[in-house]
Amino acid sequence: MTNLVEHRHLANAIRALAMDAVEKANSGHPGLPMGAADIATVLFTRFLKYDAAQPHWPDRDRFVLSAGHGSMLLYALLYLNGYEGMTLAEIERFRQLHSKTPGHPENFMTTGVETTTGPLGQGIATSIGMALAERMLAAEYGDDLVNHYTYVLASDGDLMEGVSQEAIALGGHLKLGKLIVFHDDNGISIDGPLTLSDSVDQVKRFEAAGWHAVRVDGHDPDAIAQAITNAQQETGRPSLIACKTVIGFGAPHKQGTSKAHGEALGADELKAAKEHLGWPYGSFEIPAEILETWRRFGGRGSPAREAWQTRFDQAPEAQRSEFTRRIEHKLPQGLDTAIDGLKRHLVAEPQTVATRKASEIALEVLTVAVPELILGSADLTPSNNTKTKNLIEIAPGSFGGRYIHYGIREHGMSAAMNGITLHGGFRPAGGTFFVFTDYARPAIRISALAHIPVIYIMTHDSIGLGEDGPTHQPVEHLAALRAMPNLHVYRPADTVETAECWQLSLERTTGPSILVLSRQNLTPVRTTHVRENLCAAGAYELSPADGEAVATLFATGSEVGLAIQAQELLKQQGIAARVVSVPSLDLFLEQPEDVRRAVIGTAKIRVAVEAAVRFGWDAVIGENGGFVGMSSFGASGPYKDVYKNFGITAEAVVEQVVKRHNA
Amino acid sequence: MTNLVEHRHLANAIRALAMDAVEKANSGHPGLPMGAADIATVLFTRFLKYDAAQPHWPDRDRFVLSAGHGSMLLYALLYLNGYEGMTLAEIERFRQLHSKTPGHPENFMTTGVETTTGPLGQGIATSIGMALAERMLAAEYGDDLVNHYTYVLASDGDLMEGVSQEAIALGGHLKLGKLIVFHDDNGISIDGPLTLSDSVDQVKRFEAAGWHAVRVDGHDPDAIAQAITNAQQETGRPSLIACKTVIGFGAPHKQGTSKAHGEALGADELKAAKEHLGWPYGSFEIPAEILETWRRFGGRGSPAREAWQTRFDQAPEAQRSEFTRRIEHKLPQGLDTAIDGLKRHLVAEPQTVATRKASEIALEVLTVAVPELILGSADLTPSNNTKTKNLIEIAPGSFGGRYIHYGIREHGMSAAMNGITLHGGFRPAGGTFFVFTDYARPAIRISALAHIPVIYIMTHDSIGLGEDGPTHQPVEHLAALRAMPNLHVYRPADTVETAECWQLSLERTTGPSILVLSRQNLTPVRTTHVRENLCAAGAYELSPADGEAVATLFATGSEVGLAIQAQELLKQQGIAARVVSVPSLDLFLEQPEDVRRAVIGTAKIRVAVEAAVRFGWDAVIGENGGFVGMSSFGASGPYKDVYKNFGITAEAVVEQVVKRHNA
Repeated sequence: MTNLVEHRHLANAIRALAMDAVEKANSGHPGLPMGAADIATVLFTRFLKYDAAQPHWPDRDRFVLSAGHGSMLLYALLYLNGYEGMTLAEIERFRQLHSKTPGHPENFMTTGVETTTGPLGQGIATSIGMALAERMLAAEYGDDLVNHYTYVLASDGDLMEGVSQEAIALGGHLKLGKLIVFHDDNGISIDGPLTLSDSVDQVKRFEAAGWHAVRVDGHDPDAIAQAITNAQQETGRPSLIACKTVIGFGAPHKQGTSKAHGEALGADELKAAKEHLGWPYGSFEIPAEILETWRRFGGRGSPAREAWQTRFDQAPEAQRSEFTRRIEHKLPQGLDTAIDGLKRHLVAEPQTVATRKASEIALEVLTVAVPELILGSADLTPSNNTKTKNLIEIAPGSFGGRYIHYGIREHGMSAAMNGITLHGGFRPAGGTFFVFTDYARPAIRISALAHIPVIYIMTHDSIGLGEDGPTHQPVEHLAALRAMPNLHVYRPADTVETAECWQLSLERTTGPSILVLSRQNLTPVRTTHVRENLCAAGAYELSPADGEAVATLFATGSEVGLAIQAQELLKQQGIAARVVSVPSLDLFLEQPEDVRRAVIGTAKIRVAVEAAVRFGWDAVIGENGGFVGMSSFGASGPYKDVYKNFGITAEAVVEQVVKRHNA
Repeated sequence: MTNLVEHRHLANAIRALAMDAVEKANSGHPGLPMGAADIATVLFTRFLKYDAAQPHWPDRDRFVLSAGHGSMLLYALLYLNGYEGMTLAEIERFRQLHSKTPGHPENFMTTGVETTTGPLGQGIATSIGMALAERMLAAEYGDDLVNHYTYVLASDGDLMEGVSQEAIALGGHLKLGKLIVFHDDNGISIDGPLTLSDSVDQVKRFEAAGWHAVRVDGHDPDAIAQAITNAQQETGRPSLIACKTVIGFGAPHKQGTSKAHGEALGADELKAAKEHLGWPYGSFEIPAEILETWRRFGGRGSPAREAWQTRFDQAPEAQRSEFTRRIEHKLPQGLDTAIDGLKRHLVAEPQTVATRKASEIALEVLTVAVPELILGSADLTPSNNTKTKNLIEIAPGSFGGRYIHYGIREHGMSAAMNGITLHGGFRPAGGTFFVFTDYARPAIRISALAHIPVIYIMTHDSIGLGEDGPTHQPVEHLAALRAMPNLHVYRPADTVETAECWQLSLERTTGPSILVLSRQNLTPVRTTHVRENLCAAGAYELSPADGEAVATLFATGSEVGLAIQAQELLKQQGIAARVVSVPSLDLFLEQPEDVRRAVIGTAKIRVAVEAAVRFGWDAVIGENGGFVGMSSFGASGPYKDVYKNFGITAEAVVEQVVKRHNA
């Protein structure tokens, strides 16, 4: 049984810090931290396996605050437990520039934050990946080295977002028994009582997805503790603990209403709340005794960590170094050699294949060279060419494998890949049709923002997919993704460029990469071997002009072959043109000016061809440059007819050059 | 009781057309049409209220094929029932360029297709809007004029997509009793048996969301019919009829497997299937008797439509003309005058307010002038400023109102707005934070592709939202949305531009508009009244240079005021600059070249300022133009600190000009 008085003090310390920080910033969300303080206190003081002195310990339990707007709950916990860098001064700088306490939790700014949250639903969906990675890594290294829980605190909003359904369906299906989600069931949203917009029975909904699900009083520490114990004992299913709470618990006039959600309480209500809670302390004041009690819990996991370290030290050296390498996302030796061998082979025996097939060819090599590389697809395995021969499938309760059937859940897949990567031990890559990056975009943005090196394998990349028509034909997606900071978008032109783009994607550990791959076959354009990765600067001269270049033709992916044809046609007219392949326009635009100028060159005429919209290309071809591409949605038909219909042909490229040449 | 022999012939006609069309195209999805033919036959021959001769009759039942890949089911039904334009020749041109039978159904190409589907989950989510619009219109015009069902056929994939959860939660909450969804429960997905990736109990899941839900044998016509009758009698809840079916029903070697899903059966299997089904007819051959029987059903709704017409003709003339005007999306008289009055008022009494507030001010006028304009928000009503004083709220079972609490469901909201608009009678506009367009992007794309004039009210449009930090600060979203064809993106600079952008959005009936609005207050920049809508070409000279312009400063939204400041600072240095406001960059780039050149002008130096990425701006400022904006994600802090941190200041604009002036 809990010492209720002690529990109240510990929980009130969270509430007081949250109220004070939001008040000082005059911005933020006091309601969730105050309402969920009891849940968090029970979890952190009695269950969560962590060591504040060693916050990166690989076998720590993960705690994900899916309701990221309640960030002060997490910051208060990190401070009270004594996490590295989380000082009272940082708490006082809540929501100020460059503090460790930004408006929403950011894993790349604050030690102890497992993932960036705030966009609702992302946290719970990311946690599926963490819990899955834990079991997959345990399947490889044994429960002695990998054996922890993943806990999530989710709000009503998290559970209303569609991605939460994809997540809970996947988590339930896979039988992730070590995943435990708390629903902060406070019944309040920004517009008012949740009854304005929702009447879902969440317990029943989770049960329908194969979860163990219970309801408890979220302000009763013993009930919460019992529910956690029961959830831990339920090993075959993930668990939902729906905790009935009062938002803004303790603020006498605002609690239980949307007024407690997203703004400072105000001096009067703050004072009244502290009185109401029996917390007679000043602003940001935590009595030494309470702080010391909290800090004891922060070190509580130390013996467990030391025991783990002992077990780890007893493991064979090869296993230890491999484990550490993988946790730290360092690539194995020999990758360069493997890629070089692959490129030599591809040049020696040229293959006219789709780049989705080229990706599969690369993966046959890479999955051997990089054991942490795991693959999957949102139910388009045979179309995305993501499953190589050597990969065993993950199945419910069976985690010894490297291939994941994510189901028709592009968003859930992407968020899960974020979680798998953040957990450590794996480099996930997953596929769907390129057009459906739209479905996954919020999770892709988390990859980019939170520096998560997920690899997205996006096939069927243009009108070149043909008959499926405009709903499935991306035209704006290249532009829409190139515009996103810290995301690299690759559209390779043949087998060799595909291998090079795979290499760049794997070598990147500070952010995500997207491989944009064709459905249709492409003729090889890289016909001589070079060891150097020519795609590394985003663009390079693929085919020089015969003589001084009058024109430069820029192209990507399936249109590079077309540019080469145009070059030949222009030559027949006595016009010397060079061809620049641009496998990554965004990466190219990030290069220093001299690099860019050298590749762009000095030819008077510049024309780009890409089966997509022009948006963004003026940076390369100039506002008066020629562009052959799309300016509308596509159309359903055999792909050669569709290309002709939209005028994306070598002849059209020639016309753009000749027109300017004669002007 | 069904005449089983007749039913089988009718259903087999669908199967045969689907097999033959996919075979001829050598592309497409035979599995769903063959599996769901029995459901469709029962629905179309015994329940669906329609008149193939009058396919646009406003009170027809709506049928949405959410599983759009099964398009041949719909095309076969349209042909068999004799819908305008759907000839056998069109069926034979399945998936060919410019046919009425594209790969996925497109409402703008084919009469009888209620909405574009194919991206999974969109159909069921759109249908929520149709069913809601039906009840809302009935609340205004009475059940005599508006009283129909909305039927949906959804696949496993539709139900795995997250947006389906948002849709069913909203539909269940609102008690849309006239919505009936068939789940084509065939247990097969592209990767193989559904058990590879899913184990959700769909009936229980729908029940948890407040639905009436049952399971039936999807090949038993009487069981299906009984379930539909029961669903119709269930008036207080939407209904799910989970129909256990065999994918590719009738193809002896492929049925029940993923081989039947997405490719032609092949000549041998097609022949075997026709034998197996007892269908001894040639390719595309429908015996006259069977076609005649089908066509009788196609005219079955004629008496119902005539009775409706009689009731309609008896309604008062004012009501009839208003009903017709609204169904046809024609704007009411007097809107111009109302907007002009508003603009006069805004100039006469200038207000320094956020453009989200400016939008509310405009809405106070527009909701009076345009009775079909209905508002809502994805649970950000007080932040989006979407609820004006005169609007009554829609509530469960209570549809006499004009404000919808969509809940924290940006994607579901957007799809519902597509459905509301397609139904006719309303012009919906709904709000969330601009950054969360990412969550709604697949539905926004349907708006654009399918020519649906939804209005998106997107507030908190940049780092100017401040403390909520990078998860909530859009930087790439303007570019990402400007790149989408047929979508107009507006970022107005003050109250007057906001009113003008609202006018343009309402006047547009061929596609969606997005209003991108600030959280922070903005100083008025439009200080004299002009009747003309200056935003109509996307950009205009707001402030001429004092003398011949050396520089042109381009800006949008909150940065227009900053450009005006820079203009003044430059003037003090003797540099004459003009300021061009660009409320819609995408609309501007669509203008004829002479219009663009006139606005861009001939000043040597061009600099743009926008608190977003440069991507796309080179088309206006040239590759060597100056840009003041973002090149990374934002940061959490008070917004003035954040602007300064990222160097988005009048001084930075001046520096870009001076640097070029001195070069």
